[in-house]
Amino acid sequence: MTIDWIAADWGTTNLRLWAMSGRTPSEARALDRGMGGLRPDQFAAVLAEETDGWPAVPVIASGMVGARQGWIEAPYVPAPCPAVPQLVPVPGDPGGRPVRIVCGVSQTSPADVMRGEETQVAGLLSLSPEFDGIVCLPGTHTKWVRVSADEICNFKSLMTGELFGLIAGQSMLRHTVAAEGHDPDLFRAAVSDAMARPERGFGGLFQLRAEALLADLDPVAARARLSGTLIGWELAAAKPWWLGCEVTIIGAPALSALYAEALTAQGVPAAQMSVEDATLAGLAAAHRQFVAES
Amino acid sequence: MTIDWIAADWGTTNLRLWAMSGRTPSEARALDRGMGGLRPDQFAAVLAEETDGWPAVPVIASGMVGARQGWIEAPYVPAPCPAVPQLVPVPGDPGGRPVRIVCGVSQTSPADVMRGEETQVAGLLSLSPEFDGIVCLPGTHTKWVRVSADEICNFKSLMTGELFGLIAGQSMLRHTVAAEGHDPDLFRAAVSDAMARPERGFGGLFQLRAEALLADLDPVAARARLSGTLIGWELAAAKPWWLGCEVTIIGAPALSALYAEALTAQGVPAAQMSVEDATLAGLAAAHRQFVAES
Repeated sequence: MTIDWIAADWGTTNLRLWAMSGRTPSEARALDRGMGGLRPDQFAAVLAEETDGWPAVPVIASGMVGARQGWIEAPYVPAPCPAVPQLVPVPGDPGGRPVRIVCGVSQTSPADVMRGEETQVAGLLSLSPEFDGIVCLPGTHTKWVRVSADEICNFKSLMTGELFGLIAGQSMLRHTVAAEGHDPDLFRAAVSDAMARPERGFGGLFQLRAEALLADLDPVAARARLSGTLIGWELAAAKPWWLGCEVTIIGAPALSALYAEALTAQGVPAAQMSVEDATLAGLAAAHRQFVAES
Repeated sequence: MTIDWIAADWGTTNLRLWAMSGRTPSEARALDRGMGGLRPDQFAAVLAEETDGWPAVPVIASGMVGARQGWIEAPYVPAPCPAVPQLVPVPGDPGGRPVRIVCGVSQTSPADVMRGEETQVAGLLSLSPEFDGIVCLPGTHTKWVRVSADEICNFKSLMTGELFGLIAGQSMLRHTVAAEGHDPDLFRAAVSDAMARPERGFGGLFQLRAEALLADLDPVAARARLSGTLIGWELAAAKPWWLGCEVTIIGAPALSALYAEALTAQGVPAAQMSVEDATLAGLAAAHRQFVAES
């Protein structure tokens, strides 16, 4: 296969690279050289080093590489906007390759931003051109995106994943909550309680620790209840996004399964798509756009 | 003044000691030698070292020193229980002094625990013997305690302070939220919103970051909104505790003022008492109990 472009998913923590032949990856590399650990003047050298052996073909990159603290700032495109990514060039073709970075998407009221997820939405539309509905992208900062007529109409971000990580990993609940494991019944009950009475869920957090001290609460049960409480808050906050809608979840498999479980319990069927499939399809759509404009 | 006993407030992080003459402190020492940094076999030496020069009089200690990981475990007394602290002896009169540790208080359903706050509640009752109502003790883990007929009837703990610290100090909002400062109008509006629609408050956390990126949100405004959101959730969760009740707040002055502001906005007048006054009065009540029983 001829490598005719390079796809880069360049986030805060990780860098993933694919040598691409049209829409097909011929080789993949995963590295812990995210934007968070780099100064702007280091990106070109990292890219050259990590694509060693690959030809001098165009590079399409998305994610935090385009943030203000990244390589170059790829400005936010205000929503509503076309779902096909907009690109900005890195000046000077570093390493002899044209490099293009995908712009994020912003929203004025209520204020919101995304950077990276717009590429996955474009990938979903590339793989399912008729898609019209809600995309849920669970993660550190979960996004709910309304897509219609090939546009990102509006969206909403929630800190659910980051809060779960802080509470389970760094609060006094860190000794109470298991690092893995799941209890579907307790999870669904916690989702339902937190949706119906969000404040009661907030009041229930300390109770997990007290039950562990007084009644040997199972750490897996604690994890399911904490996770259900936070996802329940999210579903309550995002209700206008999913109620009566078609939802496609794009996220890591285990996390996507939790969201699908929670949505199904509300009577909302949810399809799932892998992050890698969506990201690659979105970068490929951006590459075709780049070729068409060249 | 004759020093006839020593008061110790021995928490996770700090140790505060007072040489006492009856109910009056004659000397105070504050040290960062909390229970969190000590092994059980180190407490006796720390106490001897830090009370150097004080006479061989009884020591009354409360706080995490009595936790399972502390000096010795002072068991929880199940609520409802008398507000006068119960004491357990440290075996062997370490350093030639009788040492007594105040027991925590537990609740079975819903599960809850306190350790240290029971001493402050006892202090409030010692200073205001007719008190009948709700004590709010804001802090890392805020407690709402119902006191009636000289008993702790029941109580509720919330992780509000710890969550604020994690979100403001360690989440992606750490660059958005000022380390200090206050905006009363924004705070009260956020309290009110979070009480009326807790899930909307959850949905509004990421928005603080987006407004900082897109609209230069003032970090003091962000702090007031975050603080108001969390205290609003707490007031919603604790509504059965304060609605139509007399509330006395025992906490650090700035934090107590926020809670008083939030409660006053709900039409609930709140008195305030200093933590040190309440702690010392509670330890003095425990000391009188100890003397009476000796």
